[in-house]
Amino acid sequence: MSLLVIGSVALDTIETPKGRTENSLGGSAVYIALAGSYFASPVRLIGVVGGDFPPEEMEFLRSRAIDLEGLEIIKEGKTFRWGGRYHTDLNMRDTLYTDLNVFEKFNPKVPASYRRSEFVCLGNIDPSLQSRVLGQIESPTLVVGDTMNYWIDRKYEELLKALRSFHILVVNEQEARAIAQEENLIKAGRRILQMGPRAAVIKKGEHGAVLLTEKAVFVSPAYPLQEIHDPTGAGDVFAGGFTGYLAKTRDLSEENLKRAVIYGSAMASFCIEKFGVDGLRTVTQAQIQERVREFRSFSHFDEV
Amino acid sequence: MSLLVIGSVALDTIETPKGRTENSLGGSAVYIALAGSYFASPVRLIGVVGGDFPPEEMEFLRSRAIDLEGLEIIKEGKTFRWGGRYHTDLNMRDTLYTDLNVFEKFNPKVPASYRRSEFVCLGNIDPSLQSRVLGQIESPTLVVGDTMNYWIDRKYEELLKALRSFHILVVNEQEARAIAQEENLIKAGRRILQMGPRAAVIKKGEHGAVLLTEKAVFVSPAYPLQEIHDPTGAGDVFAGGFTGYLAKTRDLSEENLKRAVIYGSAMASFCIEKFGVDGLRTVTQAQIQERVREFRSFSHFDEV
Repeated sequence: MSLLVIGSVALDTIETPKGRTENSLGGSAVYIALAGSYFASPVRLIGVVGGDFPPEEMEFLRSRAIDLEGLEIIKEGKTFRWGGRYHTDLNMRDTLYTDLNVFEKFNPKVPASYRRSEFVCLGNIDPSLQSRVLGQIESPTLVVGDTMNYWIDRKYEELLKALRSFHILVVNEQEARAIAQEENLIKAGRRILQMGPRAAVIKKGEHGAVLLTEKAVFVSPAYPLQEIHDPTGAGDVFAGGFTGYLAKTRDLSEENLKRAVIYGSAMASFCIEKFGVDGLRTVTQAQIQERVREFRSFSHFDEV
Repeated sequence: MSLLVIGSVALDTIETPKGRTENSLGGSAVYIALAGSYFASPVRLIGVVGGDFPPEEMEFLRSRAIDLEGLEIIKEGKTFRWGGRYHTDLNMRDTLYTDLNVFEKFNPKVPASYRRSEFVCLGNIDPSLQSRVLGQIESPTLVVGDTMNYWIDRKYEELLKALRSFHILVVNEQEARAIAQEENLIKAGRRILQMGPRAAVIKKGEHGAVLLTEKAVFVSPAYPLQEIHDPTGAGDVFAGGFTGYLAKTRDLSEENLKRAVIYGSAMASFCIEKFGVDGLRTVTQAQIQERVREFRSFSHFDEV
């Protein structure tokens, strides 16, 4: 089942207590698409890069059956670059620089071949761009959208408008609280369900993720890793794995949404085990299945 | 099955965004004993109060089948009093005052009738007092112990000694990291398992709890409450419910430890729904069972 992804494509320089990587493949669209590529096919990517984007990474994305027709290349421009440094407490990071470059005037174009995409995952770009892209997709089966504090603070009205077309919102704790203007996370999630989405997934990083629907609450732990190399992209990978799994199974029942949360969490755990996207380069289906089984053992208890 | 509890007995004045309570029943031994009283019988309490301790609260504890022979009353002294104020973010609180009073020179005495207690839950008092009390119990089946940063910082050697007699350590995230001197929570837990305990339960407040044994990792979510009135005592209630459930079932298998974590989490959820110990005054067994069923629905997913 096809999965359309939109978001940033970047070259990241990342320092964590475990090491460093320089100008390596990153960006929300890349993380989402890579995670989704383990479930959905084709994955279609909408984004923009400069002439400096490494051809071998273009090849790598194609090797994962990611359709790059929607990846605009501005030859005379430079790719979006981000630099960040994580603290010993990996929940804290400093942004060292953000060079938007060609991403600054990103004007997403939806190729004709993408218009019938059935599953859509919108990375955290300007909500008015999210709405504009959505307007060009013919009745998608499922729209999963992300956002971030930057847009909540600056484009709240546009975000509210975009939210009305999201079937599922996937955000982190702070974003959920800010969107709903409510401190209690469960109440915040419930309020989001009145804003358009029929489900909300709230990502809590090392504390896992919470799925809220009108009737259900479901909580997934994070995979209890002993070695986290780089948390960058984990939230996007969650969204990509989550949406990809739904695209693969074409089942939007509550029970399957729960499974999708587990698959998203499993993919995120592969991501943070290595630097940048390296954890997503060569995962096998057997490894994914094994990790999902482990999640089961972490969270299930026998009844007496 | 008998459960011996030691810790503080206090009169707390608590302010939270939801309201205020003044000089109300509190203290780690009280929270542990009350939670344990829903599972184990008799519950035996070791603590100290002053002549000002309200007789009606003494009666209430007795009504929960809590044996108070080990509760020393220093008639001319005053009960330990603590005052705290929680922020809108309930993870943050300011201590307004700590009047140790009779608790300052707490010298726990184990009545002869307590010496054959089979299950023991040690609240976070001075680790040398924990060891001294333990030394007076004849071969307990299970010793569950708590501690806090105050002792980790000031009495690390005594704590290491006490830890060697704990079968299970129940602490929060910061405490686990400080004891193990390790930032990664899973590694910290593993290191604690080399310090004596055969299992460690790491409480993460609103993010639930993690159980670590040599072979297993188990993660319980916190009950997703929309209204938290007062988080005071939730960690102690978790420990009391956890140990009480094990005392009731007399089953120390890994599967039963998982269930005990869920029962502890369920009891903690009742605690924080009301002020002070009010949430633990009149819980029914049916309510506990119902909440455990809800935990199941929050965390189980069907396999495909």
